[in-house]
Amino acid sequence: MASLDLIEAAAARLAGHVRQTPLLNAPLLDRIAGRRVLVKAECLQWTGSFKFRGGWSAVSALAPEVRARGVIAYSSGNHAQGVALAAALHGVPAVIVMPADAPMVKIENTRAYGAEVVLYDRETEDRDAIGAAISQARGLTLIRPYDDMQVIAGQGTVGLEIAAQAAALGVNGAEVITCCGGGGLTAGVALALEARAPLMRVRPAEPAGFDDTARSLAAGTRLRNARAAGSVCDAIVTPTPGELTFPILHRLCGAGLVVTDEQALRAVALAFAHLRIVLEPGGAVALAAALFDDSLGDTVICTGSGGNVDPALFADVLARFPA
Amino acid sequence: MASLDLIEAAAARLAGHVRQTPLLNAPLLDRIAGRRVLVKAECLQWTGSFKFRGGWSAVSALAPEVRARGVIAYSSGNHAQGVALAAALHGVPAVIVMPADAPMVKIENTRAYGAEVVLYDRETEDRDAIGAAISQARGLTLIRPYDDMQVIAGQGTVGLEIAAQAAALGVNGAEVITCCGGGGLTAGVALALEARAPLMRVRPAEPAGFDDTARSLAAGTRLRNARAAGSVCDAIVTPTPGELTFPILHRLCGAGLVVTDEQALRAVALAFAHLRIVLEPGGAVALAAALFDDSLGDTVICTGSGGNVDPALFADVLARFPA
Repeated sequence: MASLDLIEAAAARLAGHVRQTPLLNAPLLDRIAGRRVLVKAECLQWTGSFKFRGGWSAVSALAPEVRARGVIAYSSGNHAQGVALAAALHGVPAVIVMPADAPMVKIENTRAYGAEVVLYDRETEDRDAIGAAISQARGLTLIRPYDDMQVIAGQGTVGLEIAAQAAALGVNGAEVITCCGGGGLTAGVALALEARAPLMRVRPAEPAGFDDTARSLAAGTRLRNARAAGSVCDAIVTPTPGELTFPILHRLCGAGLVVTDEQALRAVALAFAHLRIVLEPGGAVALAAALFDDSLGDTVICTGSGGNVDPALFADVLARFPA
Repeated sequence: MASLDLIEAAAARLAGHVRQTPLLNAPLLDRIAGRRVLVKAECLQWTGSFKFRGGWSAVSALAPEVRARGVIAYSSGNHAQGVALAAALHGVPAVIVMPADAPMVKIENTRAYGAEVVLYDRETEDRDAIGAAISQARGLTLIRPYDDMQVIAGQGTVGLEIAAQAAALGVNGAEVITCCGGGGLTAGVALALEARAPLMRVRPAEPAGFDDTARSLAAGTRLRNARAAGSVCDAIVTPTPGELTFPILHRLCGAGLVVTDEQALRAVALAFAHLRIVLEPGGAVALAAALFDDSLGDTVICTGSGGNVDPALFADVLARFPA
């Protein structure tokens, strides 16, 4: 099935179950950026991030008898919550394997959505081995966070909405900046826009030190990050672009954008003040690029991908960047 | 002109200039409330509150030659910003008379929208005298915050959207809780719902100590608050219900609801964690009632009226109520 067909099929399965999130902007934010900045506020999505789309898409695409046995996912948090709620709303069990150092709010919410959470130590334990043992024992289906065409198709519905919402504002050509980890959102949005808004160009954004996608795009081959963890943008730290996602990114995306942790935190504070939305640092890297990267054009659309942030961290950010 | 006609005419003037804000909810928030809670997120409106609707409605209703001379408003902050941006987008001057103790973010934003801000001392100066002198000298038109039928009609568009969005979710009967100061939003929403969702009943919510509307509704006549200031819910502290608004409230609303400052702050923290929106305390009193008032029914719709809050206060709230 062609890519757009997969995304449209996902959109049909998601209809009535996913929230169409608003495309926000603010005059005072535009003034700071020196350009028009439109923010696709996926922090307002169910479970607080776009990941619910991919989770719902994948769970709803399973054959009923397979789905009934349950699903399993590995995630530092947002994919965990998305899959957990999607499984709960389908009435099937979910096991989520999470690093023990994931933000507490993400672990607690995943449990609150009814999933069984299995914690592991990022430094010493092998999450794949843990997950494989559990899923084999119980017959669970693995929902990968980005290397799964149904997940990519679900995230691609963000692109369908961006194309329609931007067109309604008279915006047809723009750089579309995505918060990029493994590339599921970026690939899905790029595929959707290729078909629906061919004058738009997707630019993945990443935190400095974890810019595997930017470097891979420049090199034309998948490169790895030197470190596995250590960014405040925990949501989008992945070792390397995905096997399925990278060829899509390589074909469709412009050069990657890289922001500092401080720029990401400043974007969190500015989204608070001017858009009145809650973004987590990893969900604000695209906005940070839109605000602070001088190379971009007059109109930029960016994803505000997620808003699951520990209150203490958010309070610290407001104290550090009060305006 | 009948009330609904005024609201529909305002909606027509606002079309394309106002944002249709989402009706948000979250499974984990519903669990805390023990009921289904739908939040009309007007903090995502232009200028961060529903007040932009009334401001635009009033400014756009003026005769062009009157509007060209400019407008003036008295406001502790949200009406100020709404009128300031509405005037700026119409290309006409705005003077805003604000108390010197208004939240700094509201004063700064009002200036940033291009308005001339005149500060006065709430305890010792007479804002009406200050405003009258300026408006007479310059020929400015006063835009009252709630005792103006065009302002009420603009706020009433919130009610039109609530009726349509709730119906799309299959919700036709519900208590609709509004954050209530002078009663402009409450009156507008009540008029819109009387026509569009007659099974819904509006319940105004206020902070304890400033429950003039609740007491006035119970007494059947307009009563005053003992104090003029001193609530963290600064946005909705008014001395008494409006002359135009109170008869509408008395005819259409159920009993008023009263929440403590602590409940309002807890609602701010829960909206942060579960809806990922920024509410100011005065914009969270309706949500506080929805969460903590045991007398309410199974499904409650509430306005999240505004999100213009000083970062230091918001950080304090997150520290006090981390979950």
